[in-house]
Amino acid sequence: MSGNVLKLGIPKGSLQDATAALFEKAGWKIKFSSRSYYPTIDDDEIECLLIRAQEIARYVADGVLDAGLTGKDWVQENRVEVEEIADLVYSKTSDRPVRWVIAVPNDSPINNVKDLQGKRIATEAVNMTIDYLKQHGVTASVEFSWGATEVKPPKLADAIVEITETGSSLRANNLRIIDTIMESNTKFIMNKDSFKDEWKRTKVERIVLMLKGAMAANRKVGIMMNVPRKSMEAVMKILPPNTKPTISSLTDDAWADLMVILEEKLVREIVPDLKKAGAEDIVEFPLNKIIH
Amino acid sequence: MSGNVLKLGIPKGSLQDATAALFEKAGWKIKFSSRSYYPTIDDDEIECLLIRAQEIARYVADGVLDAGLTGKDWVQENRVEVEEIADLVYSKTSDRPVRWVIAVPNDSPINNVKDLQGKRIATEAVNMTIDYLKQHGVTASVEFSWGATEVKPPKLADAIVEITETGSSLRANNLRIIDTIMESNTKFIMNKDSFKDEWKRTKVERIVLMLKGAMAANRKVGIMMNVPRKSMEAVMKILPPNTKPTISSLTDDAWADLMVILEEKLVREIVPDLKKAGAEDIVEFPLNKIIH
Amino acid sequence: MSGNVLKLGIPKGSLQDATAALFEKAGWKIKFSSRSYYPTIDDDEIECLLIRAQEIARYVADGVLDAGLTGKDWVQENRVEVEEIADLVYSKTSDRPVRWVIAVPNDSPINNVKDLQGKRIATEAVNMTIDYLKQHGVTASVEFSWGATEVKPPKLADAIVEITETGSSLRANNLRIIDTIMESNTKFIMNKDSFKDEWKRTKVERIVLMLKGAMAANRKVGIMMNVPRKSMEAVMKILPPNTKPTISSLTDDAWADLMVILEEKLVREIVPDLKKAGAEDIVEFPLNKIIH
Amino acid sequence: MSGNVLKLGIPKGSLQDATAALFEKAGWKIKFSSRSYYPTIDDDEIECLLIRAQEIARYVADGVLDAGLTGKDWVQENRVEVEEIADLVYSKTSDRPVRWVIAVPNDSPINNVKDLQGKRIATEAVNMTIDYLKQHGVTASVEFSWGATEVKPPKLADAIVEITETGSSLRANNLRIIDTIMESNTKFIMNKDSFKDEWKRTKVERIVLMLKGAMAANRKVGIMMNVPRKSMEAVMKILPPNTKPTISSLTDDAWADLMVILEEKLVREIVPDLKKAGAEDIVEFPLNKIIH
Amino acid sequence: MSGNVLKLGIPKGSLQDATAALFEKAGWKIKFSSRSYYPTIDDDEIECLLIRAQEIARYVADGVLDAGLTGKDWVQENRVEVEEIADLVYSKTSDRPVRWVIAVPNDSPINNVKDLQGKRIATEAVNMTIDYLKQHGVTASVEFSWGATEVKPPKLADAIVEITETGSSLRANNLRIIDTIMESNTKFIMNKDSFKDEWKRTKVERIVLMLKGAMAANRKVGIMMNVPRKSMEAVMKILPPNTKPTISSLTDDAWADLMVILEEKLVREIVPDLKKAGAEDIVEFPLNKIIH
Amino acid sequence: MSGNVLKLGIPKGSLQDATAALFEKAGWKIKFSSRSYYPTIDDDEIECLLIRAQEIARYVADGVLDAGLTGKDWVQENRVEVEEIADLVYSKTSDRPVRWVIAVPNDSPINNVKDLQGKRIATEAVNMTIDYLKQHGVTASVEFSWGATEVKPPKLADAIVEITETGSSLRANNLRIIDTIMESNTKFIMNKDSFKDEWKRTKVERIVLMLKGAMAANRKVGIMMNVPRKSMEAVMKILPPNTKPTISSLTDDAWADLMVILEEKLVREIVPDLKKAGAEDIVEFPLNKIIH
Repeated sequence: MSGNVLKLGIPKGSLQDATAALFEKAGWKIKFSSRSYYPTIDDDEIECLLIRAQEIARYVADGVLDAGLTGKDWVQENRVEVEEIADLVYSKTSDRPVRWVIAVPNDSPINNVKDLQGKRIATEAVNMTIDYLKQHGVTASVEFSWGATEVKPPKLADAIVEITETGSSLRANNLRIIDTIMESNTKFIMNKDSFKDEWKRTKVERIVLMLKGAMAANRKVGIMMNVPRKSMEAVMKILPPNTKPTISSLTDDAWADLMVILEEKLVREIVPDLKKAGAEDIVEFPLNKIIH
Repeated sequence: MSGNVLKLGIPKGSLQDATAALFEKAGWKIKFSSRSYYPTIDDDEIECLLIRAQEIARYVADGVLDAGLTGKDWVQENRVEVEEIADLVYSKTSDRPVRWVIAVPNDSPINNVKDLQGKRIATEAVNMTIDYLKQHGVTASVEFSWGATEVKPPKLADAIVEITETGSSLRANNLRIIDTIMESNTKFIMNKDSFKDEWKRTKVERIVLMLKGAMAANRKVGIMMNVPRKSMEAVMKILPPNTKPTISSLTDDAWADLMVILEEKLVREIVPDLKKAGAEDIVEFPLNKIIH
Repeated sequence: MSGNVLKLGIPKGSLQDATAALFEKAGWKIKFSSRSYYPTIDDDEIECLLIRAQEIARYVADGVLDAGLTGKDWVQENRVEVEEIADLVYSKTSDRPVRWVIAVPNDSPINNVKDLQGKRIATEAVNMTIDYLKQHGVTASVEFSWGATEVKPPKLADAIVEITETGSSLRANNLRIIDTIMESNTKFIMNKDSFKDEWKRTKVERIVLMLKGAMAANRKVGIMMNVPRKSMEAVMKILPPNTKPTISSLTDDAWADLMVILEEKLVREIVPDLKKAGAEDIVEFPLNKIIH
Repeated sequence: MSGNVLKLGIPKGSLQDATAALFEKAGWKIKFSSRSYYPTIDDDEIECLLIRAQEIARYVADGVLDAGLTGKDWVQENRVEVEEIADLVYSKTSDRPVRWVIAVPNDSPINNVKDLQGKRIATEAVNMTIDYLKQHGVTASVEFSWGATEVKPPKLADAIVEITETGSSLRANNLRIIDTIMESNTKFIMNKDSFKDEWKRTKVERIVLMLKGAMAANRKVGIMMNVPRKSMEAVMKILPPNTKPTISSLTDDAWADLMVILEEKLVREIVPDLKKAGAEDIVEFPLNKIIH
Repeated sequence: MSGNVLKLGIPKGSLQDATAALFEKAGWKIKFSSRSYYPTIDDDEIECLLIRAQEIARYVADGVLDAGLTGKDWVQENRVEVEEIADLVYSKTSDRPVRWVIAVPNDSPINNVKDLQGKRIATEAVNMTIDYLKQHGVTASVEFSWGATEVKPPKLADAIVEITETGSSLRANNLRIIDTIMESNTKFIMNKDSFKDEWKRTKVERIVLMLKGAMAANRKVGIMMNVPRKSMEAVMKILPPNTKPTISSLTDDAWADLMVILEEKLVREIVPDLKKAGAEDIVEFPLNKIIH
Repeated sequence: MSGNVLKLGIPKGSLQDATAALFEKAGWKIKFSSRSYYPTIDDDEIECLLIRAQEIARYVADGVLDAGLTGKDWVQENRVEVEEIADLVYSKTSDRPVRWVIAVPNDSPINNVKDLQGKRIATEAVNMTIDYLKQHGVTASVEFSWGATEVKPPKLADAIVEITETGSSLRANNLRIIDTIMESNTKFIMNKDSFKDEWKRTKVERIVLMLKGAMAANRKVGIMMNVPRKSMEAVMKILPPNTKPTISSLTDDAWADLMVILEEKLVREIVPDLKKAGAEDIVEFPLNKIIH
């Protein structure tokens, strides 16, 4: 028999507010209290726990949590088995996955993974680094770094394995990347037993459906315009292929109302052309969610 | 003869920003200046005055103000007569009314109002407390508290009468509630003479209509979707009873566009079912106001 | 032959965030970095440079920049020739143009421009002041002020030429205005040669079209309502003349759906009347852009 | 028989940090915790309670506290009897006592206390105001003001009774002072029974002795200088009368070392003269406490 | 042959500012830059490196650093061998050593180390915990905790090993201490080879001498007073035994000047008695350093 | 006949707080108010005016001010004649004078002042730059820069003339220095007529004497120690030559008390040697002022 509460791990720290904002767009309000690690959520079927992304995979694998949001990197670093339900992309700006890279000082003689033999590597991701070196048949001293890893070479380490998005912090510390160990992004993961529980799996699927709806709306907008019936074909050609606009009849038969969902970025490209093709009163409006 | 300016009291302090936000959604922009107690409003027929909620009822009763926003509690504490025009609920999160309760230390022998006989009670609401005790035939020493009332028992008071929403501050100070004196919420009140002035009453009614429209939109969203004509009945069954969707004809006769206003929280419950029933391109969008 | 990058000057300082917000509504994301004066923008055809509004006109005139946003005042102060493409109004609140005025102490014997003969004038706009005095045949000592100009009279100057919106800072320093030198507002300007380059001019026109669309949406909202066919005429009379509502057929032939874009401020005026005329389920929703 | 703990009220709010700083100079460390109203102090014989200055007199009078720091004004407002042990002056800058004054609008016809007959007075000090009016045989409506009292005239009150140090806030609100009700400063007060308890009185006297030593050092500094024996008389004449310098013998009999405690402000006046009179190596050093 | 630069590790984080303040009192100015991990110091013979206390012992043991400041706990957690030169006590308030304790939920059946057999323990100090359990013959699962360890029991751990000073954070999380693993405080440590280098050892000894001088001055003050020769014996009896006051001759032979260094806290106890014994003009002054 | 008020210009901005701190050490309390440009000072003979350092020289030269604190650079930039009374060094850290330098991009072909012929130079110090170029017979376009000058090359300028202390901001912008135009530091300047007024000159001299006394104490400390008479010679040899210690007789004839003022930085060097030579109870104490 199945329980009726889903224990969900929310990542504490840099992703915390973005996670709450995404859930709010999806329809759930998570509230943090400064002293508690049990955020409240307005759904009696969910129980949240706020913990570091580094630890969520471990607790989901153990079954202490049914599900959680964490990076693919920390799943691997913890060397655990979980169900990966969905990829989540949080913000409009950073849709690139982050990368864990090996970096060395610009003037280091180290140029590839083989050159790391016998060297000293500082990293927050010790297991991931050891596994990677083993695959390449390299033995090195891998030391756990409590922070500020990028300032350690060359005095405190020969190389580092560090997370980076744009590489700018590495460059600022005069480091160059010699290899990428893995690309990572946020995952919605489940415990393998919880995944077999129908109630829990269905609950997670509904949450994920809404989260995806909210993410889809992040970069899209609605466009409404009045189009003369005779210009409809010309207007349709300007819209991207595969777009399915909603065309409503108006009382004035010579005109129709066209409503369509578009990538926000596309709007600035096609609006001048739509206008030229005869569309009038073009209005853009914001969306909360899109479920295709 | 009637004047053409409505003097309106805006509560200074914790409700101040929420009040301005509500008025902005309703269509009026109130701007505060750090040094002035006369906020500007973009309506020549309204003159705002920013004062403490505790004092608004008194000034409305006196006729210094025509109308104002304040709590039901402070109307009663000031022991004045005013017209109560409407209840206002400000935020999405705290739709519960607040309560004034009697609280005593967890280990106090006091268990009900009768046990307060001859005791020392600290409160910010002295009149309300005295009236309540009188109703129960109890005599006690009621002292005005300038703040931090909840830390006073047991050294500085035997009991307190204090406002609470969730009770958490009381629990944190090891106090337990023995009775509720009153429930309160924000009211839009009018002076009794101003209420008889037709211009002023009509002005207030229009403001209240818009404020209510803005409040209604706070928890609701718009949903649009394309529905196959043949699935329309199934889709309609999923929507809550009494919902009146707007169904527009599309150029493709096999489909219709359905638009409906729903409780935001309901969306996460029914979207998966709507999709299963055949609805496509389900889009949720935000609203500013809803006037039924 | 035309280049394919538009060099655009963004005004650093008080207008910086409002400029980025306007561009975001228009469809371009500008991101500032605390250490760089080259903001990023998500359009490979634009290269931004963040500089003081005072300097933008000079660099646009020189051709170092193709285009930029700056005040009409600084174009004149720099005494340069540029193409003025469009007026921009940034925010909902301050749609008044700012003014450069001559101000003197309340108790000064100076009452008009003639009285300035031989006096000492402090200002940040030295050229503009000299030009103005020359037009009136007045000679005076005009000194560049590095800031806090309004506190200089009477000790450090006899008069000042200063920018003002509401005059409140002048009043607070016991100054009165004796003349207005110019009214200014933000302009989208282009270099004269860049303007002749078709690619650059077209690019600028498209940007300006979208900026105007975003500005238009700033004060407007969408209104949807269900209207009985028989009440349609009454409802149409309440709407402002020249409004072109979109009227959609509904499945229930006795009703139509009316959608119209209105000044936000008008809504509070007409909604009560619309309701009285028979409209139901009146819903207001926010807009991102309006392209007429 | 006497107890061995002194219950001491520390005023919460504007004086809180200055009080702790004074006690630290005097030799006691008081530490506040953001959640507790029981500050810790490094003296097992003292128990601190942090409450509003307005309430301290009441609790000292009741015996809930043995002693406390509060204003003379709040002792009078609470209409209680306590022992006044010492005046305390906290900071270098504001050694003037504060005043409670009656203020009216600049253009009010009210010019003296008699003119207040039948008027409406807003104040935070209701009892003090009523007592004052009674002494002058005047009857008026005295209303408790929850704050921002100085903005109430002329709309919400005819006059106010308010605390002021420099009068600048009153002037900024276009009010003029028509009378002073009382001058107040901070007092170290004791409960009358506690005062009779020898242990408690002695404890308080020792605390007050050290507080006064710390206050005395606030405006004073130590000065050391080498003085030729033959110039000693000239140097002594420059020092203020009643100064008792410490003159130490040096190994070189022609010189002596003179050390003296002076008002800090005096130093800038006499140092040039001391130098002229023959003093060398004049050194000023800071002091923590001075017990004469 | 010896080098002439001492590589010194400064602990980043909570101790960072206190460390710099202590060095400043001792005579060295360390300046941090927000982007660099190489603080500057005004001594060409010292090179600072700013790293986490957790890592300093490891780098000192390796010889990457000659010396450093870190906790005794982290020396043990890193399982390395270093020379411990001196204990450092930083602040006036927390002179107690911190403790690493085992804590369990208040209602846990675990009461001593033996009960931990087979349990799950979360801690930031994995090695220290494992070594401790081994000494007691206990086997348990010890998991590295990335933070917020005290909220993990009972859901995420059965027990924790955590650092505590007052125990208040543990109590706030409903945990009770069942054993203390170790007491720790800050140590000045040296690499074993650097210790054998005479120049480096001497350099460190001089630094430590000055640091201790600064620490000694932290709780002490200077007291000067004028004492009648005839009262000297009485005054000397009030001073603590083993005090060595400096007694200077005055020009007036009937008096002497007595200067003595005392615990600041003692001053408030003996000043009233000194005064009673005849001492006059008792002055307390602050000290920077005391080298006995 | 002379007036009895000295009008003194205080530099607004980066030096403002340091100036007030220096005056406070010297014996004058300057207080700024957020809205006023007339700081108060506790000396009826001084009237302060808070203005930008760039403008002070101009107003001192004009006689609007009698005296002021500003940089040597701004005296020269304003091309005015004033009396330079004293050099002021404000802080312990930056005792180097600042420099105005010519900087060009690292990869610029410009290598010396001659190469600037016909180039475009951005600077806040236009006159200073023009005068310098004229001395070298170079003609170039010198443009006033409103800020962020260091980011202008190479796009907006070929070279810049900018103020620098350490050169780090220039390096961060990939600029190299090709010449130094001038070194500057803060000066106490007087109007030439005010300088001839005896009262004003004497007043300024007294202020400057005290300012210098405060600056002298900034880097110095007092040291007291007990020295055995027989070790006195050895101790004296360790002290720097030209030191004049105060040696006081003690009641115990075998010992003397030695007091001396030393550079703070020297203390860490000689204290170990003093101890070895027999000195005991070495105490360092802070100073406010030193007038030699």
